Amino acid sequence: MKISAIVTLKKDVLDPQGKVVSQTLRNMGYDNIINVRQGKYFEIELNEINKEKAKKKVEEICKNLLTNIVIEDYTINLK
Amino acid sequence: MKISAIVTLKKDVLDPQGKVVSQTLRNMGYDNIINVRQGKYFEIELNEINKEKAKKKVEEICKNLLTNIVIEDYTINLK
Repeated sequence: MKISAIVTLKKDVLDPQGKVVSQTLRNMGYDNIINVRQGKYFEIELNEINKEKAKKKVEEICKNLLTNIVIEDYTINLK
Repeated sequence: MKISAIVTLKKDVLDPQGKVVSQTLRNMGYDNIINVRQGKYFEIELNEINKEKAKKKVEEICKNLLTNIVIEDYTINLK
């Protein structure tokens, strides 16, 4: 089963990468860009058929490895 | 309007970052991990109400700036 996890900086945390992308787009002539925020995307393939169990496992993985819970949030999507 | 774009390496392109995450998870005791692939996530806020126009704009942005179309794919989601 494939599950995707998206890790983003929390709303109040400054995102310099996103700022650079946003500024670059404005310089390229895209004048209706309000804001860009960047994050990480993980596609995790698990040997697990049970959806709930797989989701729980990925949630654990997000907390233990993929996310710095002080400054980041994560969202999990079943595929 | 907020639109998200996910940029991932194409299926046949080696993903060393994903490999490291996958190996680390196995070392941590998660033995049912088959594979992990990593990508980039962008949340783009546009000053545009029309969904189709916004989607088209983000598609253009993906092609022109965010994606290396030789080795990467992108997917766009309206929020």
